[in-house]
Amino acid sequence: MSEISEQAQLARNASFKMAVLSREQKDSALRAIAESLDKNKALIFEANEKDVAKATADDLDKPLLKRLGFGEAKLADSVSGILSLITLEDPVGRTTLHTTLDDGLELYRVTCPIGVIGVIFESRPDALIQIATLCLKSGNSVFLKGGSEAYNTNLTLAKIIYDAGVGAGLPEGWLHLLTTRSEISEMLALDEYIDLIIPRGSNSFVQYIMRNTNIAVLGHADGVCHTYVHKACDKDKTLKVLIDAKTQYVSVCNATETILVDEELKDTVLPDIIGALKSAGVEIYGDQYVADKFGGILQTEWHHEYLDMKVSVKLVSGINEAIEHINRYGSGHTDAILTEDQDARDRFMAEVDSGSVLVNCSTRFADGFRYGFGAEVGISTSKIHARGPVGLEGLVSYKYKLYGNGDIVAPYASGDKKFKHIKHDI
Amino acid sequence: MSEISEQAQLARNASFKMAVLSREQKDSALRAIAESLDKNKALIFEANEKDVAKATADDLDKPLLKRLGFGEAKLADSVSGILSLITLEDPVGRTTLHTTLDDGLELYRVTCPIGVIGVIFESRPDALIQIATLCLKSGNSVFLKGGSEAYNTNLTLAKIIYDAGVGAGLPEGWLHLLTTRSEISEMLALDEYIDLIIPRGSNSFVQYIMRNTNIAVLGHADGVCHTYVHKACDKDKTLKVLIDAKTQYVSVCNATETILVDEELKDTVLPDIIGALKSAGVEIYGDQYVADKFGGILQTEWHHEYLDMKVSVKLVSGINEAIEHINRYGSGHTDAILTEDQDARDRFMAEVDSGSVLVNCSTRFADGFRYGFGAEVGISTSKIHARGPVGLEGLVSYKYKLYGNGDIVAPYASGDKKFKHIKHDI
Repeated sequence: MSEISEQAQLARNASFKMAVLSREQKDSALRAIAESLDKNKALIFEANEKDVAKATADDLDKPLLKRLGFGEAKLADSVSGILSLITLEDPVGRTTLHTTLDDGLELYRVTCPIGVIGVIFESRPDALIQIATLCLKSGNSVFLKGGSEAYNTNLTLAKIIYDAGVGAGLPEGWLHLLTTRSEISEMLALDEYIDLIIPRGSNSFVQYIMRNTNIAVLGHADGVCHTYVHKACDKDKTLKVLIDAKTQYVSVCNATETILVDEELKDTVLPDIIGALKSAGVEIYGDQYVADKFGGILQTEWHHEYLDMKVSVKLVSGINEAIEHINRYGSGHTDAILTEDQDARDRFMAEVDSGSVLVNCSTRFADGFRYGFGAEVGISTSKIHARGPVGLEGLVSYKYKLYGNGDIVAPYASGDKKFKHIKHDI
Repeated sequence: MSEISEQAQLARNASFKMAVLSREQKDSALRAIAESLDKNKALIFEANEKDVAKATADDLDKPLLKRLGFGEAKLADSVSGILSLITLEDPVGRTTLHTTLDDGLELYRVTCPIGVIGVIFESRPDALIQIATLCLKSGNSVFLKGGSEAYNTNLTLAKIIYDAGVGAGLPEGWLHLLTTRSEISEMLALDEYIDLIIPRGSNSFVQYIMRNTNIAVLGHADGVCHTYVHKACDKDKTLKVLIDAKTQYVSVCNATETILVDEELKDTVLPDIIGALKSAGVEIYGDQYVADKFGGILQTEWHHEYLDMKVSVKLVSGINEAIEHINRYGSGHTDAILTEDQDARDRFMAEVDSGSVLVNCSTRFADGFRYGFGAEVGISTSKIHARGPVGLEGLVSYKYKLYGNGDIVAPYASGDKKFKHIKHDI
């Protein structure tokens, strides 16, 4: 048995104990973790400086270096994130169904943790803290693998969090940090012990994970998000929202990558849209009309995620074509319509098949924090299990509990007895 | 493009139309289907007679022949199943969350269909009717593959159901029947169009499906269900429940396969249990003590599904060993405790990690009909998405809908504005 496999088995055994912790026990472990992170900050900063020094010597990108850095401000944010997690309701133990099957035969559906969750995340050390504490609050054991650039920081953070948790009564094995890339493929084979994998990272990396494991995978490969400018849009709102949706933070999955514009607007609003985007420094990749008319680059491949100051702009004949285009070329992540027309709004909201569909606001809102979930482990484009931004609720399952008094099936099968199936309000 | 792939694309296009049908439209299609099945029963019975004649000539098992037969009684059951489906609430369009993010920025989470569902089922023609109508009611397109023994019956049923549905306004391509086994592997590759596969059948078949597709799979490979006889059990209830759980219908996944008996009961209740089981015609596969003492066959492999008049019987030292045994050797399907002790009951219900956990009743209750779901597509041992018996609720996903008025993220990111996150009761 490999070390990873042993650790996974430990995590699975721990998960049974995690599942029955009370809210108070979990919250007191979270408090201990927050305190220990603060108390050991010198250690953390020292480890992080090593990682940053190595990354600088390796000539890593500026944005990556910025994400990798972990100082006072990020620590304070992480700690306050944990404190706000403590204020959230326990997602475990909620009754979501109660039916009296027959006299004295009571059925309940009650939320419970998933078990062992494997999370593979990018080079932000704060992600480790967030994911570990979300898994704790939802009663799950967790396997973590962070970006190799943050090796020393992650090692330090994981040790502090694990030890503080165990010190506060969490079971041994509740958290395990993987440190090498080869351990990822070992983890992908452990479907006996691991219930769910959440990969965060590039499109190709997430696709690799999805194609190489029998474990359920939660997440998204790409975010080809659309904003559709309907003929009945308000021009001022449109310009304001488009600039935010495209430029507020370009390297994230919920930034708008394609703008669809109603043909009727081609002489009225379209020139202003192009003008505003160009002024903001955005390069235009247009369909034939847009490229010719406004000097943009011709784009013909519509499933395209730039993650950059670039955007696809395409004319559409109306809402039918817009919806069809989005359902065909989008990634089911986040799509918006800008319109003052109620019928168009309702059709778009009903027919666009995406995790988040928005009216008159920026696609950048599609996010667990902004949606009020307290925190998120990721955004799912799957329609199975959790969809859209995933917070604590996506980290739980449920089980049915049936309480009887010596009841047997035979008399119901023969027709001598009939079920009552009285549904109770929760 | 293969024919299957074209059909799958058609089904996907149809799914967008299925998703926006009103309850009335879906229920009137269900009514049309029920009427058409009744009107065309001569055709159905004729096709079924062909299948039964061939199966008889091929010398198929009696139980299989019985499942394959489809006459007046089964048709009446199927039609009444459809009529009761009509009375169930629409699972689509339910709002499950409403949060005011800020003034005029309203977030809703609303249930919606999954999309295209592929179901592979055994040789019961009534399964085809049930699955097709469950998918319809939940607004999903469906790909069906039934047992080859029911080839003619399935062909006839699928045509009647599809035509009646389209006649009542369902979109073309909403249902497609696969007829050859090789089409299954083609279907498993169509992750672009198919959102969920539900395989029903033997352990090895379901495992094959799970290992050979990137599409999400809902179901269970095996049902190694336990009944644990706790030291504080009531003897009469225990004997009655055990006989029902083991013998009421042996070839199904929720029949008890392993009986765990508290050591303290070895001279009191255990002899009666063994006696009752033997009288009912059940063969005993025991641990060393049970095999020696009662002349049973020695069993050492505890993850064993008999689907027969056979049962494993093992002594355990108490509730700790019982729970550990079940979580280790069970399949997370359905497990029961027989006890009058409240602490033991509560620990078992909390710590056993299975889709259904039961107190003082037969494992045979774990079933969508008995749980009051109207019907079921199967029982899931996964903790992702739907768990336990899966009815209409397991066939829907959800999407987030956000309504704004020109709102952008920038002022929230800079700290100029703060979210209010006012949660509303649903």
